[in-house]
Amino acid sequence: MLKIDRFIKKRAHKIGLPPGTPVYVGEKREEKVRISVVDYDEEFFEEKEVSRLEDCFGLKDTPTVSWINVDGVHDVQIINSLSSNFDLHPLVVEDIVHLNQRPKMEDFGDYIYIVFNMLIYDEDAKEIKGEQVSLILAGHFVISFQERPGDIFDVIRERLRNGKGRIRKMKADYLAYSLIDAVVDQYFVILEKIGERVEELEDSLIQSAQPATMHDIHRLKREMLFLRKSVWPLRESISGLEKLESTLIKKTTQKYLRDVYDHTIQVIDTVETFRDMLSGLHDTYLTSISNRMNEIMKVLTIFASIFIPLTFIAGIYGMNFSYMPELGWRWSYFGVWGLFVAVTVLMLLYFKKKKWL
Amino acid sequence: MLKIDRFIKKRAHKIGLPPGTPVYVGEKREEKVRISVVDYDEEFFEEKEVSRLEDCFGLKDTPTVSWINVDGVHDVQIINSLSSNFDLHPLVVEDIVHLNQRPKMEDFGDYIYIVFNMLIYDEDAKEIKGEQVSLILAGHFVISFQERPGDIFDVIRERLRNGKGRIRKMKADYLAYSLIDAVVDQYFVILEKIGERVEELEDSLIQSAQPATMHDIHRLKREMLFLRKSVWPLRESISGLEKLESTLIKKTTQKYLRDVYDHTIQVIDTVETFRDMLSGLHDTYLTSISNRMNEIMKVLTIFASIFIPLTFIAGIYGMNFSYMPELGWRWSYFGVWGLFVAVTVLMLLYFKKKKWL
Amino acid sequence: MLKIDRFIKKRAHKIGLPPGTPVYVGEKREEKVRISVVDYDEEFFEEKEVSRLEDCFGLKDTPTVSWINVDGVHDVQIINSLSSNFDLHPLVVEDIVHLNQRPKMEDFGDYIYIVFNMLIYDEDAKEIKGEQVSLILAGHFVISFQERPGDIFDVIRERLRNGKGRIRKMKADYLAYSLIDAVVDQYFVILEKIGERVEELEDSLIQSAQPATMHDIHRLKREMLFLRKSVWPLRESISGLEKLESTLIKKTTQKYLRDVYDHTIQVIDTVETFRDMLSGLHDTYLTSISNRMNEIMKVLTIFASIFIPLTFIAGIYGMNFSYMPELGWRWSYFGVWGLFVAVTVLMLLYFKKKKWL
Amino acid sequence: MLKIDRFIKKRAHKIGLPPGTPVYVGEKREEKVRISVVDYDEEFFEEKEVSRLEDCFGLKDTPTVSWINVDGVHDVQIINSLSSNFDLHPLVVEDIVHLNQRPKMEDFGDYIYIVFNMLIYDEDAKEIKGEQVSLILAGHFVISFQERPGDIFDVIRERLRNGKGRIRKMKADYLAYSLIDAVVDQYFVILEKIGERVEELEDSLIQSAQPATMHDIHRLKREMLFLRKSVWPLRESISGLEKLESTLIKKTTQKYLRDVYDHTIQVIDTVETFRDMLSGLHDTYLTSISNRMNEIMKVLTIFASIFIPLTFIAGIYGMNFSYMPELGWRWSYFGVWGLFVAVTVLMLLYFKKKKWL
Amino acid sequence: MLKIDRFIKKRAHKIGLPPGTPVYVGEKREEKVRISVVDYDEEFFEEKEVSRLEDCFGLKDTPTVSWINVDGVHDVQIINSLSSNFDLHPLVVEDIVHLNQRPKMEDFGDYIYIVFNMLIYDEDAKEIKGEQVSLILAGHFVISFQERPGDIFDVIRERLRNGKGRIRKMKADYLAYSLIDAVVDQYFVILEKIGERVEELEDSLIQSAQPATMHDIHRLKREMLFLRKSVWPLRESISGLEKLESTLIKKTTQKYLRDVYDHTIQVIDTVETFRDMLSGLHDTYLTSISNRMNEIMKVLTIFASIFIPLTFIAGIYGMNFSYMPELGWRWSYFGVWGLFVAVTVLMLLYFKKKKWL
Repeated sequence: MLKIDRFIKKRAHKIGLPPGTPVYVGEKREEKVRISVVDYDEEFFEEKEVSRLEDCFGLKDTPTVSWINVDGVHDVQIINSLSSNFDLHPLVVEDIVHLNQRPKMEDFGDYIYIVFNMLIYDEDAKEIKGEQVSLILAGHFVISFQERPGDIFDVIRERLRNGKGRIRKMKADYLAYSLIDAVVDQYFVILEKIGERVEELEDSLIQSAQPATMHDIHRLKREMLFLRKSVWPLRESISGLEKLESTLIKKTTQKYLRDVYDHTIQVIDTVETFRDMLSGLHDTYLTSISNRMNEIMKVLTIFASIFIPLTFIAGIYGMNFSYMPELGWRWSYFGVWGLFVAVTVLMLLYFKKKKWL
Repeated sequence: MLKIDRFIKKRAHKIGLPPGTPVYVGEKREEKVRISVVDYDEEFFEEKEVSRLEDCFGLKDTPTVSWINVDGVHDVQIINSLSSNFDLHPLVVEDIVHLNQRPKMEDFGDYIYIVFNMLIYDEDAKEIKGEQVSLILAGHFVISFQERPGDIFDVIRERLRNGKGRIRKMKADYLAYSLIDAVVDQYFVILEKIGERVEELEDSLIQSAQPATMHDIHRLKREMLFLRKSVWPLRESISGLEKLESTLIKKTTQKYLRDVYDHTIQVIDTVETFRDMLSGLHDTYLTSISNRMNEIMKVLTIFASIFIPLTFIAGIYGMNFSYMPELGWRWSYFGVWGLFVAVTVLMLLYFKKKKWL
Repeated sequence: MLKIDRFIKKRAHKIGLPPGTPVYVGEKREEKVRISVVDYDEEFFEEKEVSRLEDCFGLKDTPTVSWINVDGVHDVQIINSLSSNFDLHPLVVEDIVHLNQRPKMEDFGDYIYIVFNMLIYDEDAKEIKGEQVSLILAGHFVISFQERPGDIFDVIRERLRNGKGRIRKMKADYLAYSLIDAVVDQYFVILEKIGERVEELEDSLIQSAQPATMHDIHRLKREMLFLRKSVWPLRESISGLEKLESTLIKKTTQKYLRDVYDHTIQVIDTVETFRDMLSGLHDTYLTSISNRMNEIMKVLTIFASIFIPLTFIAGIYGMNFSYMPELGWRWSYFGVWGLFVAVTVLMLLYFKKKKWL
Repeated sequence: MLKIDRFIKKRAHKIGLPPGTPVYVGEKREEKVRISVVDYDEEFFEEKEVSRLEDCFGLKDTPTVSWINVDGVHDVQIINSLSSNFDLHPLVVEDIVHLNQRPKMEDFGDYIYIVFNMLIYDEDAKEIKGEQVSLILAGHFVISFQERPGDIFDVIRERLRNGKGRIRKMKADYLAYSLIDAVVDQYFVILEKIGERVEELEDSLIQSAQPATMHDIHRLKREMLFLRKSVWPLRESISGLEKLESTLIKKTTQKYLRDVYDHTIQVIDTVETFRDMLSGLHDTYLTSISNRMNEIMKVLTIFASIFIPLTFIAGIYGMNFSYMPELGWRWSYFGVWGLFVAVTVLMLLYFKKKKWL
Repeated sequence: MLKIDRFIKKRAHKIGLPPGTPVYVGEKREEKVRISVVDYDEEFFEEKEVSRLEDCFGLKDTPTVSWINVDGVHDVQIINSLSSNFDLHPLVVEDIVHLNQRPKMEDFGDYIYIVFNMLIYDEDAKEIKGEQVSLILAGHFVISFQERPGDIFDVIRERLRNGKGRIRKMKADYLAYSLIDAVVDQYFVILEKIGERVEELEDSLIQSAQPATMHDIHRLKREMLFLRKSVWPLRESISGLEKLESTLIKKTTQKYLRDVYDHTIQVIDTVETFRDMLSGLHDTYLTSISNRMNEIMKVLTIFASIFIPLTFIAGIYGMNFSYMPELGWRWSYFGVWGLFVAVTVLMLLYFKKKKWL
């Protein structure tokens, strides 16, 4: 099935609402929104689940780096009250709860808003699944919004906990970078999976061109469309972030942003290569159909061209004319058999010469 | 039918007229031009229908924000007298009454002229219908021109009436933005409709490739052409508006223009994705025709290749030679039946080996 | 026929001549070159045919605006002497008399040289015909060169005569703009004509795909190539003209140049849309051929698959074996008829199941 | 045959040599390198063949313009000693003797190095032949290197001799321009030739689609690839030359460079148009093959569908059942003939209705 | 087989590691990492294998140019300790040991990091093999990392040894250039090889279109994808290097970088030309299949259309009606033979007229 919903940002039922009105647009969800907080600097580290929203309001002004992670954006009220406490622009809040955004980055002076897609390859559905992630990067805190609880950010949490690498020594901008990097890394996992599928398709094409193969080629092409739709604008956003003249992004972090930018380019490169390959497979498929048609027609033509004349000859001597001199001759019947053999041999030689045999 | 008129701006019967001569070019219309006015600021709000054109001339200089909405541009005289009162450039007036303009934005210093298309998906004709909207944005007023009365702007009127959102607190530029935003929102509605159609086509293709399906693919492709023709230049115009160094556009409004600009990019993205998908469906259709042809030919070849030799054998023993020894043998007839079965089995094995069965 | 000459600028027989040597390259012409002059300002107006070339030499320095229109560039001597009097660069003179130029605009300080194509749709040949127009725009005069007398500029002449619009109040730059505008307006006429042809093709394709239709699609595609070749560089030239920092172009005229620039963009847009549509028609044509082939093969296969087995059965009982027990049975013949009917019904059911019927 | 060598710059056997090592890479040649010198200013003119290389070393510092033309670059020693006398950079010398360079222009301060291809259409091989030309433009001299003696530059020599045009009054930069111009003029000659071939192909396609036609289309496409490979970079180089801020290029010459730049754009335009046309011819060819296939299948289907049922009917009454009442009837035979006619007429009507006849 | 691994940078098993963690990603290797050092200036030259890593740490500060070449990057510990001694950024170290990087160039102030692919055409596998090369260019040293020992850099080593060319007189930047140049030279070797393969394919296509040919076309297309993926970003990197405002790149070296930049453009040009040619071959292949199908169908149609009517006629006179007057006539049999001949001749004439014979 097509699942075209993945490709469209729905706005229909928001028509008439003033811009900046936060309305949740996405799959219906029931579970409670989960908010977790990590607060750290080089020496200090604290991690907790927040039950009362107000508990994390104080983090706005602390000098430590605070990472507020929100799992679930379907409860507009919570998002709204959190956002207003952190002084977010109404358009930002609207975007956070409106899923299927095009990835973008916007600088609001005091903070930067980044939205992009976390992608996962669903092995069963043989399909890429997307989830919208919003990041707010301010001087001393990062707020991240996910559609549902997931484990992609766990590696960052782990790294913060045991203080591995330079993450605890760096500021909020490095944390934001780490989150983006973790998401982009998943893109490579997807590409490896898709790459395997392309390889399988190629192999199955060499053996025989089944309509199912064509269907799979077509499907992978569409997955590439979906991936492309996520990566291209993300690349632009990261490039924008790297070049941003903002005190929010430190010089040392720019090198790292450059690195993740390079990764997005590699993803794009590979997506385009896969598209080219899939087009190649498509061509191969069509050619193999044509070849097979040729072969079928050859078989038909050879059979028909040999036996139709023979049948005609047999038909001649099945006629009931009273005066047909050959009928009475002694060796006529064997002569006709000779004719049958001669015609057949001639036809076979003819097809041999035409290289059909 | 093609309805190619939607795609062409007609100029033929204007040839020879000096530039800036306003001539109505569009479908013939008879109804009276309707002018309505909304006048407001944060505290004040007035809404009225204008019967005498002169009644709205005074609005030019009032400090409140005035929105003059004109439904119908086919009465050139009214448009002309309104325009000259508000000091519009002759080329602007010419463009307002000349339908099928390419969307554009032009800065005339005292005012900005924006023209674009309001689009609606006509469910019956399965077709996008366009209507030209012109906006004049000046310091204290906005004039909007529509081809015919419609309800897309009603939501703005409603918001102005009950003072919801920030619209009453803002100036004329925010009103102009709101009007553009209302129109762009409709584009998403169209995309959702088209998306459903694409999904239906995909489903019907999987079941069976009918020529009608092909026809529908072809039609949707054309609707995409039409949509694209409206959105691309609109995107440019909004971008121009956002970056315009003009006192007419306040800084706070720029953020909102950026937002609607992002929306146009999403529309373009989706249009391009749909185009890619429709191309994919086209390919699938062609492949399924080829596959079916292959199958037809296979049936023919199998039938012909089995029965033509058999018929030949039967033909042999239908010959009337006086000396055909087999004819007199006791078991010949059953032997021939054995031959029939043997040939058939051999042929079936042969086709099995070729994987045609 | 292809008429490829329209697409090539011929230089072969100019090889070896120094650059700036004016040589007429184009269709052979015999008629006399006709020079007409219009001299005007807001109050004054004079119009005359010039018999002696020298009569218009004085116009170079008069403060009134002078429009010298030259019909025919095949008499190199006349062009040459006119040009040298008005101090034109040798390369300009060479370009004026060398037809099939690519449209361009060049600023020579004292004057601006613009060359472009006047296009007309020849209804009989169903072909666009081009004619090269060169304009010299200087401070007080405009010289226009056409290949042959034509009536496209008559509307300008008429407007000058009766002083309608602002043309008499404006300077030479506005006159040059008016001439370009008159030519671009013709492009829209052509587009409407082509649009009708595309619509006709679409209609005739829906009814039946004739090879002639394909031929027409192919032809219109080529006309689009020709149109594109004229409009793209013209658009650049007008854009260059609009942005030129030259005292020859007044600020008020720039708005008008912007307008005609918008027109060229609309022409390009429509040309590209038509190209997309023609590609769509091409695809439709190919698909309908494939569909028809499928249908033909289906008919063949159904006929052959039903009657070949039947013929075989009939053949069996046409054999002349002396011992064929069925032959003597009382109801055999009718039994065979039953077999005929049964086989036919089974085959029809089979084809029905395959959805071929 | 493909002649792919034209498309590749060979470097294989130069691997390991330091950059700047001049090695002749190209077809083997035996003839002596010919050096001719033209020395001139407005009054003075001298032309001579140089037998001892040293004779032209003095020309470096004379105030007259000196044109040293070298026919043949296969004698590396001569090129080397000439180059070192005129202080050319080792990389330049390497490029001069290494054929199949991509056209380029490089400014070395004291002199400018330009390399491009002289093209000639070989009527017999129906192929474009290329020859590399290198130019060194310095203050008072121009050195030109050709692969073999040719006559394209003769027209320049002739013009210098009799002082026609402004060439003798101008400096070395104008001479360099004239040489480039002479080469570009040849491109137009090739385009006219190719244009004729395209026209012929079109005509032969209308008559009948032969595989040979397809082969020719394919070949011309490749020639277009070759031409494009030469013109695109040449256009860039000339553009670079025109915009170069160097005292070596006088202002007056820039106008002329602009002219030859326009010529290269026209060549590119025409090449692209030809490519589009050839693609169109390709499509026409494929369509005509499909059409013909359709026609063949129609003939087969009509014949088979009419005669197979008839043969079946005849087969029925060829059966030898002892009890077949019809056989004995008086008018049966004529009745069967009636059936034959009826079936045939019905089938014909059926095919008529399907518009196959 | 597809070998899609060449096209993907694998990151899957690095997920969760902090950025800048060096992990070897590539084929498993066992051999010892080999480090060789060349130390030189114009007078001095020393070459040695380094067994203890520490032996080359001192080279960092010597005024001579030092080239440290590392064969094998699979021993992360060695790379790590070398890198930390030379103060390389963690991200650089990560990239060095992570194979399948996209070519890039990065300026770190004190040193420049360049990574690109050394390509070799594997004649047996008919495939391009890539190997990642990393260069560190600092003021007085160059460090080069290869995946495995190879001989491409031997020519540079040789040139250093015997002091040929200007390499010993130049600084580290010229050495880095020389290494890049040696790698790019290999690209030309590959292109020549591929060119030969394209030529072979063309030849074999003219003789007969085998499915194997199609397979080869498809494969070469993919090799072109692979080559393109390496060259495009390398071109950018070299261009960046040439334009870099860094004291690490001397002015004199820029000319040489420009030269190798031109080489990459030529590689790209040729790759694109080959792609166009391969597409042309693909088209030729498809057309020749269609042509052959046409021919097959013609043979079938001619045979069937001639013999099916004849068989029908024979069938008529095989009917057993008791009253068939013709049967008794004396010359009927010969008359029927006349009919056979007449029908055959008519059909042949008909096919002749249709130009099928």
